[in-house]
Order: sequence, then C-alpha cells, then structure tokens
Amino acid sequence: MEHIENDEKYNGLTVNQGVAQPPVVNPYLQRRRPRRMPSAADMVEGILKGDVTMLSRAVTLVESLSPDHQTLAQEVIEKCLPHSGNSRRIGITGVPGAGKSTSIDVFGLHVLKQGGKLAVLAIDPSSERTKGSILGDKTRMEKLSVHPSAFIRPSPSAGSLGGVARKTRETIVLCEAAGYDNIFVETVGVGQSETAVHSMVDFFLLIQLAGTGDELQGIKRGIMEMADGIVINKADGDNVQRAQLAAAQFRSALHLFPTPASGWTPEVLTYSGYYELGIDKVWDMIDRYFAFVKENGYFDRKRSEQARYWMYETIDSQLRSHFYNNPEIERMLAEKEVKVLNNQLSSFIAARDVLDRYYSALFER
Amino acid sequence: MEHIENDEKYNGLTVNQGVAQPPVVNPYLQRRRPRRMPSAADMVEGILKGDVTMLSRAVTLVESLSPDHQTLAQEVIEKCLPHSGNSRRIGITGVPGAGKSTSIDVFGLHVLKQGGKLAVLAIDPSSERTKGSILGDKTRMEKLSVHPSAFIRPSPSAGSLGGVARKTRETIVLCEAAGYDNIFVETVGVGQSETAVHSMVDFFLLIQLAGTGDELQGIKRGIMEMADGIVINKADGDNVQRAQLAAAQFRSALHLFPTPASGWTPEVLTYSGYYELGIDKVWDMIDRYFAFVKENGYFDRKRSEQARYWMYETIDSQLRSHFYNNPEIERMLAEKEVKVLNNQLSSFIAARDVLDRYYSALFER
Repeated sequence: MEHIENDEKYNGLTVNQGVAQPPVVNPYLQRRRPRRMPSAADMVEGILKGDVTMLSRAVTLVESLSPDHQTLAQEVIEKCLPHSGNSRRIGITGVPGAGKSTSIDVFGLHVLKQGGKLAVLAIDPSSERTKGSILGDKTRMEKLSVHPSAFIRPSPSAGSLGGVARKTRETIVLCEAAGYDNIFVETVGVGQSETAVHSMVDFFLLIQLAGTGDELQGIKRGIMEMADGIVINKADGDNVQRAQLAAAQFRSALHLFPTPASGWTPEVLTYSGYYELGIDKVWDMIDRYFAFVKENGYFDRKRSEQARYWMYETIDSQLRSHFYNNPEIERMLAEKEVKVLNNQLSSFIAARDVLDRYYSALFER
Repeated sequence: MEHIENDEKYNGLTVNQGVAQPPVVNPYLQRRRPRRMPSAADMVEGILKGDVTMLSRAVTLVESLSPDHQTLAQEVIEKCLPHSGNSRRIGITGVPGAGKSTSIDVFGLHVLKQGGKLAVLAIDPSSERTKGSILGDKTRMEKLSVHPSAFIRPSPSAGSLGGVARKTRETIVLCEAAGYDNIFVETVGVGQSETAVHSMVDFFLLIQLAGTGDELQGIKRGIMEMADGIVINKADGDNVQRAQLAAAQFRSALHLFPTPASGWTPEVLTYSGYYELGIDKVWDMIDRYFAFVKENGYFDRKRSEQARYWMYETIDSQLRSHFYNNPEIERMLAEKEVKVLNNQLSSFIAARDVLDRYYSALFER
C-alpha cells in the first residue's frame, strides 16, 4: 500500500522543488488551514472530556480513506479502548415507511429522560448512491437533533458492507469513551447490513407495521430470526386492532422457532411513535432484557464473541481486498468469470489459475 | 505447497537408490498394486460410458488430500465439464429423526421408475468426528443401495465446510458426466451446511415432522427460508391430522415472508415415507417447480450465479487457508485473540498487526 508523504501530494498537487514557484492559492488548502489536525493525545483527551467537536473530528478520521488518517484513527481508538464498553448497544431496523426516524426520536428522548447520553449511528452501505437514505438528514429526528446529550451521525459513506460496518463499530468505541452510555445503530432492514449490526449490538429491535395483508413487505426472512424484540408501530386510532392482530401473528411465527442462545424469548409489542403511546412498555422490555442477559452471563459472552468476530472479519476482508484490488488479478478474474458463466471452465480451475498467479507474483518480488 | 514425486514417498517409505534392498513386502502397497492409477483420459472415457467403478475412483481422487491426486482430479473434472449440467439437482434436509433415509429411499425409487439414473451425495462436515452420521451406512437406503441405476456416496470426510462442500460440488460434475440425471444432496439440517447445499442445487426440500408442540425442534431458523418445498413426514395412521395441522402452521409461517427470487411460492405437503403415501404428490410438486423455473428463466440464472459463487467461494477459502495455515500466523493469532477477548486490544489493531506480519513475511522471501 502506498503511503502518503505530505499534504501536497495527498491533495493531488505537483511540487517542483528547487524551482521558484508562485505562491500556492489552492482554495482547498486555504480552507483547511484553520483545522490543523490535533495529535492523537489531544483528541483522546478531548473525547474523554466529552468534547463533541473532538469526537466528531475523530469519527471523520475513522471514516477517512487516507492511510495517514487511518493510522491516526487507529491510535485514537487504541487509547479510547480502555474507556469503552460501558453502554447499552441497541440495533434498530425496519423497512422504509415503518417510521424508524420518528420512533428513534421518541425512544431516544425516553432514554435521555432517565439521564445519560445517547449516540445514534447508522450502517447503510448504499448511502453514497442514495445520497444518505438513512440518517443523512439529522432533522428527521426533530427532538434528538437539538438535544444537548444526543450525538447523531449518518452512516459512513458507501463502500463494502464490511468496511462501512467496521467504521461504525470503531465509532462505537469513540462514543463510549466520550461517555455515551446508550448507542443506537440504525439499519434500513432490507439487506445484509442487519447481520453486521447484529454482530455489534446487545439488543436487536425490529420495527414492523400491521401490513395490508399478513405479509411482511420487504423484510428479509433472516432478519426476524435476529430480533430480540419486535415492535409494531402505528398502533393508534383505527389501527390499534390491526396492529394487535399483526403482533399475534408475529408471536405465533416466532413460536415456530427454538429459543435463541440468549435464553431470552423475543417479545412482540405494539406502540405508536407519532402519538408516543406504549413507548415505556417497549423500553421496559429492553430493560428486562439487559437485566436477564447480564444475570445469566450471556451479555459478556456475546460481547467477547463479537470482539473475536471483528478480529477475524477484519482479517478476512483485508485478505480479500489485498487480492481483489490487485489490477492484474482484477483483469484476469473478469476474463475467467466469463468462461465460468458460459460453462467453458470449472469454477474451481478458474479459482486455482488466478490464485496461482497471485501467489507467484507475491513471491517473485 | 510440497509436491509428491512418487508413490514411495507418498506412502512414507524411504527409498535408498543404488543400494541392494530386500523385496518390499509392505501390505498396503501389495493391496494397492492391482489398482494402478488410470490416466485422466482413461477415467474420463470410463465415466462417460457410465462405468461405476471408474466414477467411484474419480470421486475418491476428488476427495483425496494428496496434491498429485488433486491435480489429476482437476484434469478429470475439466474434461467432464462439457458433459455436465444435464440433471435435476435436489437438496434434501431435515433434522435427525425426520426420516430422511427412508424418504430418500422411496423418493429415489419413485424417480427411477420414470427412467434415468440417480446419484445420492451428502454434505456433512462432521462426518469424520461422528463416523459418518449421514449416508455413512449405505444400507440405510435399503432399496436404492441395491438398485443398478443408483449411485450412493457418503459425505467427503471432515474438513472445513467449504472444503467438504466443494468436493461434493465437484462430484456432481462427475456424476452428471456419467449420465446421472437426478442428483440428491443430503444434509443433516442443523447447521451451515444447508447454505452450501443451497448454492449447488436447483430445488431445496425440507423434511419436517409434526412436532410435539408447535415448535420446530432443532431446525435452524434460516433453513426454512431456503426451502422451495416443505414436506411433513409420517402422515399416516393416527398422525395424519397432526401432520396436516403442522402443514397449515408452516403455510401460515411461510406466508409472512415475501416471495423468493424464483417467483415460486414454496409449497407444503404431507406424506409418509414408511407407508409410501403421498410420494407422487411430492414429486409432482418438484416437477411443477422445474417446469416453472425453466419457463421463467430462473433455472439458468441460478445455475450461472452458482458457478460464479463457487469461483469466488474457492478463492476466498484458499486465501484464508493460506493465511491461517501459516504456523507463525497461527501462533500470533492465538496470542492476539486472548488480548482481544480481555478487551486489552482492539479487534482492528490485532487484525492489522497479524496482517502486517503476514504480508511482510511474504514479501521478504
């Protein structure tokens, strides 16, 4: 991997040393000057004091693709690590239209009434393409966005799911070090992101609606099995009965499956985010869950397993990117793939050919 | 990777060239002598003629860990590839006790009555540990095991799931080249193997029982979502009503989910393997499925996607094994893992340290 030597090179400017040059008036550099990068120690000090500006800058660093920024980010994370872990990490998902933003807004306020601080993060690998489909616009959470104890951060922008998720996982460490004792991680509820979130939260909440029929529009089948709690939104006015019917259907569907490893039987509740009905019951369930899994040891066990998971996930994804980002490999793969798709070449032989080339190139140097 | 030069070395014997030696009376070599390895061309010729002995030997080669055997196996597969693909690949799973063996026996006979040939394979990564928990004993399929048009092969013995599955996938190619136009792939229904099977079959059949309650004992939640058909076994005598009730419950649970990519709505049927009741209805459903997906193009699309999947799956698993089988890396990982589990080291920093060591060692040589 090429390391960036200086700002000029990083900004794509050519530097002719030893030749008289007119003064550089690159507006980007001008704009950046007042925001000189603080040292890792300064950042950590700021974060530990709960300085939101410093926290934001550290998160930006985590999200940066620049190798220099990454090195600094890892140093900050390492120093924050001993101060992390002391929070309730809650994953929240639901299809678009289920009322996630409004719900997170009222759930968040409910949590903050009990004291403490709340960070709302997101994982949405499609966020660049869709210009920030979730959490891109903080004002979707009207009350939280102006609350002094809430820190709202949109999803890291698009990349591989593993990469986006890893950045969110690292941001959790920073937020916890800054004293945020409640972390919400939002996902959009239609893809693989939920598995990634599941691997970093303690409790996974699935927001549903009473459907038009009895079908869960758009919810991937696997998501339901990860839920520790399912909550049916918009249980208000004429809709109360339909929401309760939907809840009964979910309860009986959940019944078909064995008890999860936590020993906790997922609960199904109804509420109204808009009219703020039943919010306390939802939160009471979550409190009971935490008491339950802390008592039976599952809480600590899951956190340890998650830490191990992220170590191996990071290794596997780096092994892949080192391979797939090699231009020669990329070219060769495209060629082999066509043959495999046309049944002219076995998948296994194609794989072996490309791997042979990769390792021989590595050893040659 | 060390390449094996000759049989003697492979068998672990020392050969002192140029020195008079007493005749070798190693019983293993004696036993092997009559089975001299045929050439790839001979094997392919035999396979294409439908010679079962040659097919068996080729499958043994595929399953062998010897690099020489692997090279030969890949050559045979490559030559068989143009003659493969012309079969119905059906995955069959169900928890132990659901009556899989009896069911496969009667399903198989039903299929063979319509002509053609049937190969029954298995994926069970635990098979070495449990001494062949599935298909280890061919006689479990009483009728098929003596049928001249059936080829039954136990699971390749234990290894990584990816490795075991890959061998089964390769065996499918050989069987198809040998004219087997129906392939069953059995799994035990309790783990990740089902995902692997799902990536190599056209139709996925889940065998269930009417439970004691309404709980699906031991079936992993994700498996139900892969099923193209769910069949409730032991619908005979007193049990008919309970089986029908279970079927109704499954139908309503399936209803909760959106239609799969195939456009096919999974069906739920009851049957009795032991009394051979309802077998034709199960097979009628499978026939309708194949007609449906061949008509709408999903059949070809899925096969292409599967071929691509296996190319990338093979690459990813080789990248991992090259890394994880390195003794120095193994030692370093064990050390880092302890620190990660004790929250002394970030998962991400641990991963980076080990990766740095790996790549620097590769480049050093």
